[in-house]
Amino acid sequence: MKQFLSPADLGDLRKAFQEAIEIKNDRYGHVELGRNKTLLMIFFNSSLRTRLSTQKAAMNLGMNCIVLDVNQGAWKLETERGVIMDGDKSEHLLEAIPVMGSYCDLIGVRSFATFDSKEKDYSEAIIQQFIQYSGRPVFSMESATVHPLQAFADYITIEEHKTVERPKVVLTWAPHPKALPQAVPNSFAQWMVAAGYEVVVANPEGYDLDPKFTAGATITHDQDEALKGAHFVYAKNWSAYEDPNYGKILSKDMNWTVSAQKMALTDNAFFMHCLPVRRGMIVTDEVIEGPRSLVIPEAANREISATVVIKRMLEALEK
Amino acid sequence: MKQFLSPADLGDLRKAFQEAIEIKNDRYGHVELGRNKTLLMIFFNSSLRTRLSTQKAAMNLGMNCIVLDVNQGAWKLETERGVIMDGDKSEHLLEAIPVMGSYCDLIGVRSFATFDSKEKDYSEAIIQQFIQYSGRPVFSMESATVHPLQAFADYITIEEHKTVERPKVVLTWAPHPKALPQAVPNSFAQWMVAAGYEVVVANPEGYDLDPKFTAGATITHDQDEALKGAHFVYAKNWSAYEDPNYGKILSKDMNWTVSAQKMALTDNAFFMHCLPVRRGMIVTDEVIEGPRSLVIPEAANREISATVVIKRMLEALEK
Amino acid sequence: MKQFLSPADLGDLRKAFQEAIEIKNDRYGHVELGRNKTLLMIFFNSSLRTRLSTQKAAMNLGMNCIVLDVNQGAWKLETERGVIMDGDKSEHLLEAIPVMGSYCDLIGVRSFATFDSKEKDYSEAIIQQFIQYSGRPVFSMESATVHPLQAFADYITIEEHKTVERPKVVLTWAPHPKALPQAVPNSFAQWMVAAGYEVVVANPEGYDLDPKFTAGATITHDQDEALKGAHFVYAKNWSAYEDPNYGKILSKDMNWTVSAQKMALTDNAFFMHCLPVRRGMIVTDEVIEGPRSLVIPEAANREISATVVIKRMLEALEK
Repeated sequence: MKQFLSPADLGDLRKAFQEAIEIKNDRYGHVELGRNKTLLMIFFNSSLRTRLSTQKAAMNLGMNCIVLDVNQGAWKLETERGVIMDGDKSEHLLEAIPVMGSYCDLIGVRSFATFDSKEKDYSEAIIQQFIQYSGRPVFSMESATVHPLQAFADYITIEEHKTVERPKVVLTWAPHPKALPQAVPNSFAQWMVAAGYEVVVANPEGYDLDPKFTAGATITHDQDEALKGAHFVYAKNWSAYEDPNYGKILSKDMNWTVSAQKMALTDNAFFMHCLPVRRGMIVTDEVIEGPRSLVIPEAANREISATVVIKRMLEALEK
Repeated sequence: MKQFLSPADLGDLRKAFQEAIEIKNDRYGHVELGRNKTLLMIFFNSSLRTRLSTQKAAMNLGMNCIVLDVNQGAWKLETERGVIMDGDKSEHLLEAIPVMGSYCDLIGVRSFATFDSKEKDYSEAIIQQFIQYSGRPVFSMESATVHPLQAFADYITIEEHKTVERPKVVLTWAPHPKALPQAVPNSFAQWMVAAGYEVVVANPEGYDLDPKFTAGATITHDQDEALKGAHFVYAKNWSAYEDPNYGKILSKDMNWTVSAQKMALTDNAFFMHCLPVRRGMIVTDEVIEGPRSLVIPEAANREISATVVIKRMLEALEK
Repeated sequence: MKQFLSPADLGDLRKAFQEAIEIKNDRYGHVELGRNKTLLMIFFNSSLRTRLSTQKAAMNLGMNCIVLDVNQGAWKLETERGVIMDGDKSEHLLEAIPVMGSYCDLIGVRSFATFDSKEKDYSEAIIQQFIQYSGRPVFSMESATVHPLQAFADYITIEEHKTVERPKVVLTWAPHPKALPQAVPNSFAQWMVAAGYEVVVANPEGYDLDPKFTAGATITHDQDEALKGAHFVYAKNWSAYEDPNYGKILSKDMNWTVSAQKMALTDNAFFMHCLPVRRGMIVTDEVIEGPRSLVIPEAANREISATVVIKRMLEALEK
């Protein structure tokens, strides 16, 4: 595995799930695999869960781990050729990336959407440059448009908890005070469809996601209708994708908050969220603390999804 | 051992001292104990000695170590239930803490007093929430009211240097330009009494510490009287504890600075301080550089006290 | 080896090169040497290549590694005795350095020139205090006036690529928008002369380096003349060394930019730079991306130079 951005990079998801469960039952079973191998984790943006769970995963596999926090203000990379670099950008990506690649065996990159340009965000310019120029396998630790380690952990969590072969999984928009990227909902929709589930995406008008990620899912603007018969409810805020409102907040409608009343419409569904979550906005205390909330085991599975991905990349190195 | 905040958590202090000396003579003797175990060190406040010595201790024991610097401004935790989180707090402790616990085996927490509320500081709200919600053993790396790794290192240092069975140990307030927490003097008084020493606390009026920590010690406002016959002098500044002056500076009286003249009152006492220390304010150059100064071996014992504590927690995990 | 600042600290450079090549062919061949040994890396200034390559080197040798980023603003060290420390300096170096030394086996220090005082910068006050007070072997990770890990990597790179026994190596000044230290050119000149090469330093008038470092090299103010017959061209900006302009920018003359036209004057020379590099200022895209550019292999050799230095220090510890 040379890159990890989408479910296709993992291949057969059922096999990946089985591998995840084997790892969960014996986290240090492959501790020799990463001996004398180094993971470089590059953060252009802050991180809690990803930072901790990915380090844990790499150490489970016996790797050495280097964490680099790139201060966005201090370290601006020039990306254009033919420029006289007399301003605030002190290094060109064409030097920085291969150099970073020379000091490690695998690279994880966190780099959020900037909302400056939809085209630039959706081209995944930064992580694609790492893939192209680093000479190393690269995985996304949430990049501009995807968060595949999260979606893989979500998939593991649903497989662990589902009671029907093909559950109804509802991704619902919910209100939030800040403009957030579409990375988590994009990947969630894409992975759930790839898993073969019945997938419904519910959001207010104007909030439809990029069809590239939601293909195979039913899109609706009626949350109540969507929730009927759901086995899993995945709440998440995102900003608008569609032009001319890309990256903007169009609604803070508190009728979309996931409450006990909303959950009563479902088939006793589990509640999920990638965290961090704004209580009272996205979900009520009652639901997130209730017996059907999976937010903590879902977060704990981030260690497992990262371990599978890094393990696969290490195995591919050896070939 | 499930938590480490007070000498009672360690049990028999003489046994703990013997264990410390064994470790000091063979620091890597238990390097297999921590194999495939992870320490998460969480810093809400900055740190030099604690950061380095605790990492060193964990690595002595063969552990993996993850350091998380929580930017106080960026990552505010909501602590109340029933709140609509539409402000600057992006995550609730009820999610953040169990998630952090899921990625490690032990947790160390540094979280200073804020002086916003004496009640809140003295309830040790932050570290108690980690104890309650993380599902992991938790030790203080200086919390609001205690610094037990420091006090344990101080105890080891005194045991190593004492020449009488029950030395006279004097904790004296000294002037400082900033308002400092009571964590170090609270723990020092508490541990020295627990060690069975003759303990005297000398401070200006208005600076008496919480009696919960000084019970068993003699409190005096006469520094010269206190120093007479002392075997160990431990200097430290702290801000006022008593209402209505909690967290305030009441005095910068330079007559309390520990000088050679002051040390001449003692029984050729050793000088101690937890560091960092303001020379000329807390102590003179002559005293801190003199042959009876223990500040460097005392700091070096921070590695030893942390190794004993982490070792005990690892042993308890295995049961 | 107790310190690493200059080529003399390494001894026979040919032997050091042979050791470097052995390590390059078997990076983990000495992974047992650093077992239960700890490297403390102290950064007073930011770093990318040095941070990553030195950690990688230490881990290649099986060491534990602690990285300490000293926030310049927050942690000011008092250096004078007899001072009343009632200002913004909270700790004296006479305490801080031996304490840091007590938690590790080796120390690397990055501490740039401040340009406040040429005398202070050129006395290498900070790293010399670490050498004097830490009780540990200390190596420069770029200090005020030298960058020996870079110059050693440059030497390795030239030895790998040279086709004549004694190549002509030209260090040329080039324009830059900010005032930069002389550490890299000082060490480069010193190491290249020590290697026995024909060394020419070309810079505008007023930019002559400290003769202590350029002794044995030819100094010229005519870049074109210098480039004739060169086998290696090493470009670098530096600020003025000579009084009364120490640390100042005297020229941004773009005629000194290394272009294809300039490289045509050489004997098909290789192009080198320590990175980060300002394209269009120091060098054109065409040259740095061309087939004779060594900037990436040169940066990759930073891991090798650091591994040799740390290995030598570890071996000396055991004696």
